[in-house]
Amino acid sequence: MSTIGFIGLGIMGSPMAVNLAKAGHTVRGWNRSPGKAGALVEAGGVEAASIAEAVRGADVVITMVPASPQVEEVAYGDDGILANAEDGALLIDMSSITPQTSIDLAARAKEHGVRVLDAPVSGGEAGAIEGVLSIMVGGEQADFEAARPVLEAMGTTIVHCGPHGAGQTVKAANQLIVAVNIQACAEAVGFLEKSGVDLEAALEVLNGGLAGSAVLTRKKANFLAGEYRPGFKLALHHKDMGIVTDAARTVGATLPVGATATQLIASAVARGDGDLDHSALLRGVRLMSGQEEK
Amino acid sequence: MSTIGFIGLGIMGSPMAVNLAKAGHTVRGWNRSPGKAGALVEAGGVEAASIAEAVRGADVVITMVPASPQVEEVAYGDDGILANAEDGALLIDMSSITPQTSIDLAARAKEHGVRVLDAPVSGGEAGAIEGVLSIMVGGEQADFEAARPVLEAMGTTIVHCGPHGAGQTVKAANQLIVAVNIQACAEAVGFLEKSGVDLEAALEVLNGGLAGSAVLTRKKANFLAGEYRPGFKLALHHKDMGIVTDAARTVGATLPVGATATQLIASAVARGDGDLDHSALLRGVRLMSGQEEK
Repeated sequence: MSTIGFIGLGIMGSPMAVNLAKAGHTVRGWNRSPGKAGALVEAGGVEAASIAEAVRGADVVITMVPASPQVEEVAYGDDGILANAEDGALLIDMSSITPQTSIDLAARAKEHGVRVLDAPVSGGEAGAIEGVLSIMVGGEQADFEAARPVLEAMGTTIVHCGPHGAGQTVKAANQLIVAVNIQACAEAVGFLEKSGVDLEAALEVLNGGLAGSAVLTRKKANFLAGEYRPGFKLALHHKDMGIVTDAARTVGATLPVGATATQLIASAVARGDGDLDHSALLRGVRLMSGQEEK
Repeated sequence: MSTIGFIGLGIMGSPMAVNLAKAGHTVRGWNRSPGKAGALVEAGGVEAASIAEAVRGADVVITMVPASPQVEEVAYGDDGILANAEDGALLIDMSSITPQTSIDLAARAKEHGVRVLDAPVSGGEAGAIEGVLSIMVGGEQADFEAARPVLEAMGTTIVHCGPHGAGQTVKAANQLIVAVNIQACAEAVGFLEKSGVDLEAALEVLNGGLAGSAVLTRKKANFLAGEYRPGFKLALHHKDMGIVTDAARTVGATLPVGATATQLIASAVARGDGDLDHSALLRGVRLMSGQEEK
């Protein structure tokens, strides 16, 4: 069992820290805004008063924060992780950030004797609570093996994808496919509705064939009801499309349908739909086709 | 049990007719080019020398031909189906054609006392052979109920989607989603390869989350090997994107990612890839990004 400093007790981080504590690890959690450690403490963890207090003496540090700037802040600050972590500690960053930030973090951490894995997740709040996240890991093979007992408390599909940044790259590809497929399904829904087809019957038969997907399975109810409670917010998917756009530009990859989906998500956020679930891309399809909102 | 005239014994039609014969129906098959009835005859069916010979005395007529012009030809010709079908016969057109052609066919058939269903399928040659096709049906509810015992010999997911043309509309939506999702997955593959990620590991973890789909499951081997034996030919998907584009224009639906995917399929066909499986959209992604073909 490990002693774990856990930085970031938000919607995802809190249940992940809880699952670590329940699995028997010693977990010291810290969150920027206070009052987020209740569930962790109830599960046997401890609330730390500072990042330093969370990470000192820990053999594993986990970060789960919103984006690249927050990772850099908690890692590089004077009272941050690298300044306080033990020599030889393993830092597992599970945030979804740019691959380049993960690569840079690994290099800077090495100077402090800290090993790093990037390990972003897919599965949402429900997956975090149930401990069934998909975890995409980049970094050294030996560090991946060392991290596995810790990761297994939070996820079920845990895959080493390559060197530092590879986990973030796969997460970016995940967000690319999901965005485009949601938009494709939304366009199909708009077309079916305008054609006067029985939408529920149509989605059933579509999901039984080659058009079938996790998107169609999990977002069907939203599409049918026109209700978009997150789930995963369009504002966060907007951030992620920025990551995949930048990463693709960096490696020289071309994303024609990805670019279109990126613009349509940007449009949804600009129209004020950022706090809705990403299945609300259907609202943009309706708007473009002159359909009434449900 | 029905007496069935079956028009079109191609890659799909032949195994579908065989399954009808095996289920105990009396099947008389006809195909424009001769020598296609071998499997049907072996299964207990009969080869008809003309459309007239196939449909006279039949209570059900099934058509499974490539596109709208062939449906019109076998239905409307002097020696065609409507000129020879029994009064009250049920014509089930299982071809993938434009919704409007299905609507027109139903109207003209009614003048001849022939009832019509449009019932296009999804599931490919394998689904046809195994009798597990998804069948999307448009037309009158009573005719759908009458057709069900016949359709159940060919498929497992059999859904009534609405009035005449609704089956074709849902098939068009199916081809829209499939095209866009294949292109999205191909873009993700190109991005992952250029990023130096372990592609097989990445596709495994991607398929376990919200990016997961039938496309990713069934086309993964093609993507990994760079081999594109059909499967479903890009030339046929090109035809189908024409159908969905026209149908969407007719009802006033807008297809932004669908339009991009349509152009990329057109590009693949123009470059000479029409006889490859539609997963060969990856070849276009590689071409755009300056990658070597495998």
